Amino acid sequence: METLGQGRTVAVIGLGAMGYGMAASLRRGGFTVAAFDVRPEVTRRFAEEGGMAAPPSAQAAVAGAEWVVTVVVNADQTHALLFGEGGVATALQPGAVILSCATMAPERAREFAAAAARHGLAYLDCPISGGAQRAAEGALTVLASGAPEAMAKAEPVLQAMAAKIYRLGDEPGIGAAFKMVNQLLAGVHIAAASEAMVFAKRLGLDLRRVYEVITASAGNSWMFENRMPHVLDGDYTPRSAVDIFTKDLGIVSDMARGAKFPTPVASAALQMFLMTAAAGMGRDDDASVARLYASVSGIDLPGPP
Amino acid sequence: METLGQGRTVAVIGLGAMGYGMAASLRRGGFTVAAFDVRPEVTRRFAEEGGMAAPPSAQAAVAGAEWVVTVVVNADQTHALLFGEGGVATALQPGAVILSCATMAPERAREFAAAAARHGLAYLDCPISGGAQRAAEGALTVLASGAPEAMAKAEPVLQAMAAKIYRLGDEPGIGAAFKMVNQLLAGVHIAAASEAMVFAKRLGLDLRRVYEVITASAGNSWMFENRMPHVLDGDYTPRSAVDIFTKDLGIVSDMARGAKFPTPVASAALQMFLMTAAAGMGRDDDASVARLYASVSGIDLPGPP
Repeated sequence: METLGQGRTVAVIGLGAMGYGMAASLRRGGFTVAAFDVRPEVTRRFAEEGGMAAPPSAQAAVAGAEWVVTVVVNADQTHALLFGEGGVATALQPGAVILSCATMAPERAREFAAAAARHGLAYLDCPISGGAQRAAEGALTVLASGAPEAMAKAEPVLQAMAAKIYRLGDEPGIGAAFKMVNQLLAGVHIAAASEAMVFAKRLGLDLRRVYEVITASAGNSWMFENRMPHVLDGDYTPRSAVDIFTKDLGIVSDMARGAKFPTPVASAALQMFLMTAAAGMGRDDDASVARLYASVSGIDLPGPP
Repeated sequence: METLGQGRTVAVIGLGAMGYGMAASLRRGGFTVAAFDVRPEVTRRFAEEGGMAAPPSAQAAVAGAEWVVTVVVNADQTHALLFGEGGVATALQPGAVILSCATMAPERAREFAAAAARHGLAYLDCPISGGAQRAAEGALTVLASGAPEAMAKAEPVLQAMAAKIYRLGDEPGIGAAFKMVNQLLAGVHIAAASEAMVFAKRLGLDLRRVYEVITASAGNSWMFENRMPHVLDGDYTPRSAVDIFTKDLGIVSDMARGAKFPTPVASAALQMFLMTAAAGMGRDDDASVARLYASVSGIDLPGPP
């Protein structure tokens, strides 16, 4: 593992639940990691763990880096970080590779790749999947697409971050499109799981038994299995927040409308996430959609232990 | 296995994809199986395979049986078969056990159990899950509820048909409720899988690659994994028909409305099954929902090989 990086420098911008773990995985992979977050205390913590000085800005972080991994919330943040005022595109050395990990519409990924090229930079569209724990373990799934040269240059960085690398095509935007298809399904499955669990409670069923039966039956989904324990435990501490899916199903909705493609099931799910956010739970765990159903219908779900 | 039945007689009524396999599993389990279907050629085929005479009616099939397993399409057929004109309730010996396998609303299961009691019969609410192949292997999942006496008496029959027996409570209707929660999820997941796959095609993605990526990602569901190969192969030969889910999500919709519980996601999925049935595909495989999305939006899906 340590031989991957060989002391070469990679910058990581955005040290949230995913980015922090990815930066740590890269450091473990033998890279010199210059990491920056808009929260100075987070930037400092990561630097101190590596015995380094904390970079004072994103531009400072990328100085001397061969790669920059951007792990911010959305396309607009990615754009501001790369190409806005004080953006890192002007501070990166020519030939450096941008690995863009935020979930976004494919057209934004194509737009950023073209802008990167105008700065003499390579761009890899590489949304990620797997959650915070896998990020910390260097065991993410990466949905990568982009020019073969960008893909080849990014290889050691991808290897240090991911257990599974899908190389999906030579054009930026393909990885983004795969991610949006996944998010459509994931969002619908969380909303359906919430609907089904609270419906089961309304029918008087024992919810732990429902979890046991459904996870062994044809009604199971990855999201049901992963998220419904939060409902059973009454624990809505955010692992992934409601607002992530108001955003991602919103992108799906925009893309589908733009393509004149109807998505009635995803649209119903989006409305449930919006209602949950509107009810003040946007920053809570996305299993909070179940609390919305329960609250609307006057049903008691398990509380915290 | 053969010791389970000890030559005792069980009747099976309804020899569709599930019932035929269940009857065969019971025969393999050492039971004398008197099986009947409204299609005389199917009744004859099963009887001949066992070297028996074909019963001329459902009433004839249950004469001398300690158990009757009903595997018909819905609650109304179950009612007609048990308690209608020429129904088997009057032909069964006192103390015989009805194992009712059709998917139905819990209140119908409770109603049938009460009617059975008036005939001196035991009633087990035991919807099944797992598909035709598992039925043939005696490896179904059974969601059973009912009076302890009915549960105990049904035990050898359940053992011969099922790999997994959930004993969910002492009241009929609980098994039915668990099944409806499962069907809510299963139906939503088929509709969402169809929506996502055709959306992916609209985005220009390679569908086999989409299947590979999604089944390894957080967007996966049991139904996506099981049904989407039908879309990849362009094969809509019915394993389970669209009309099953117009029925089952219809029951969910009725139950939820009756309970004043909102199910917007299941309702959107139900509308997609109804559109697919309205377009003439009701008897085709339920993955045909993908063909509806494709047809509406002028997208070509893979054809048959």
